[in-house]
Amino acid sequence: MDESIEIDATTSSFDQMVTLTKQIQDRLCAAIETIDGAAAFTETTWERPGGGGGRTRVLQGGDVFEKAGVNTSAVYGSLPDSLASELVGTGTDFRATGISIVIHPRSPLVPTSHANFRRIERGDTGWYGGGADLTPYYLDGTDAAAFHRLWYDVCERHAAVADYRKWKTACDEYFYLPHRGEHRGVGGIFFDYLTADDTRTEEDLWDFVVDAAQAFETAYLPIVDRHRRDPYDADQRDHQLIRRGRYVEFNLVYDRGTRFGLETGGNVESILMSLPDPVRWVYDYRPAPGTPEAELVDALRSPRDWV
Amino acid sequence: MDESIEIDATTSSFDQMVTLTKQIQDRLCAAIETIDGAAAFTETTWERPGGGGGRTRVLQGGDVFEKAGVNTSAVYGSLPDSLASELVGTGTDFRATGISIVIHPRSPLVPTSHANFRRIERGDTGWYGGGADLTPYYLDGTDAAAFHRLWYDVCERHAAVADYRKWKTACDEYFYLPHRGEHRGVGGIFFDYLTADDTRTEEDLWDFVVDAAQAFETAYLPIVDRHRRDPYDADQRDHQLIRRGRYVEFNLVYDRGTRFGLETGGNVESILMSLPDPVRWVYDYRPAPGTPEAELVDALRSPRDWV
Repeated sequence: MDESIEIDATTSSFDQMVTLTKQIQDRLCAAIETIDGAAAFTETTWERPGGGGGRTRVLQGGDVFEKAGVNTSAVYGSLPDSLASELVGTGTDFRATGISIVIHPRSPLVPTSHANFRRIERGDTGWYGGGADLTPYYLDGTDAAAFHRLWYDVCERHAAVADYRKWKTACDEYFYLPHRGEHRGVGGIFFDYLTADDTRTEEDLWDFVVDAAQAFETAYLPIVDRHRRDPYDADQRDHQLIRRGRYVEFNLVYDRGTRFGLETGGNVESILMSLPDPVRWVYDYRPAPGTPEAELVDALRSPRDWV
Repeated sequence: MDESIEIDATTSSFDQMVTLTKQIQDRLCAAIETIDGAAAFTETTWERPGGGGGRTRVLQGGDVFEKAGVNTSAVYGSLPDSLASELVGTGTDFRATGISIVIHPRSPLVPTSHANFRRIERGDTGWYGGGADLTPYYLDGTDAAAFHRLWYDVCERHAAVADYRKWKTACDEYFYLPHRGEHRGVGGIFFDYLTADDTRTEEDLWDFVVDAAQAFETAYLPIVDRHRRDPYDADQRDHQLIRRGRYVEFNLVYDRGTRFGLETGGNVESILMSLPDPVRWVYDYRPAPGTPEAELVDALRSPRDWV
């Protein structure tokens, strides 16, 4: 990254996070358009009836990226009772801001990736959450190791805040489809409820979040670049579209963010920008043992240590 | 229908239902293969670890039908605590048998249809449930009216058991996507917890269920036949694939049967045979006002009286 992110330190943590997420959105969208070379993001801004709004950017039908969404939002208002019991803090006043990224490349040889970084405040309590994970259609140990190594390094740089081992396990546990006995991908990191305490200050948390949010581009785009020119055939494409079905199953059946958003009257198109296009559901698709397609499924059944 | 369904009246209601659903499965699959003319059903039998099993039949890649599933199952065992509270009756012993039908034609001008008919027994309490509904991609008032009229007539023939008005409304209410503000299709009938009481005998219930389960073929296949040769273009096909995305959203986010099945360790491939193939999610797809595509969406937002 050439330029460092600069944030006015005199503003609140929430306002800093709003600024950070928009800066990351601008940079990442520009980098994605450069790699793609053909398609551009279209921007939609939306307002939430209860307070706040968002800036949704979606790129569709590119040469390299079939569908990519990079959304930022900052919403505030009163927590519905049904959700109040699920969050730490007290009271019904809340604010939430974050960036959500889901990138579905066209080639089955380029992994999908997802990341999000957010700050939520309820009453006097505020915390950070987020993570990043990789969903390949064909297993490439070099990619998976590089992706994990980068997040390991980010965590090591912020040892008072971040715990790679714990967050890697949390990511594997979260992105899991019990009905398939499969994880969604090869993982990454997943963290939530990061607050300041005796061992770390608000500034420690902030330094970590800035570093992590910038790191996504460095973690993922080199993997895209490494494989985007690799030739593939129609069978590999079918395998990818069927695996995308699993991605949809996870997001619609299990993902808390998706279900939370749909239940609380969030912006439907922004929430569901995470769904790939196109997708297939073929009855009883089972790759033959020993094939690269079966090797991927095996890896999704048993998370590995990639660092 | 040429031959009437014959059931040995000396067996239990449960065993009669097992026989009925298998006979309907045989007939319907044969009729679908005849119309398709190219593809055949493949059969998979499966056993449930807790007791019982099923016979899954799926046809894929046909000329007329892109994906069709006709499943029967008869399972028994002990109800999980999490589900016991959701069902009438007492105790944990249960049995369930039924037929589940989901048919996705290839042409966007031919509606998708779904039906199921089931008997569930818990302890000493047994009941029937089921229904049938139509999901067009283009609105055709003649089709919708004919489909509803047929179910109206079935209900009229069994007035002690069936209430078309109530069940039509229940169908509209059940097949609804709150996050889209849209119903899944133009409806049909939906009923549950049908038990004998002072006004109707077990035989009355049984006569209705036999009539209704046979009626699906008569309700749906003539609609397929009426449109299967109509020419369509790539834009209409895209509209269909995007609307199929809504079908997936309903089944994975809201459908009780799907979620119940996935949560209780049901046969995943049999449960998810309901998902169409292929499917698209295009960001912010909005048909232009006044187009046939917009007319369909309007109809899905405001259920009509079709009889």
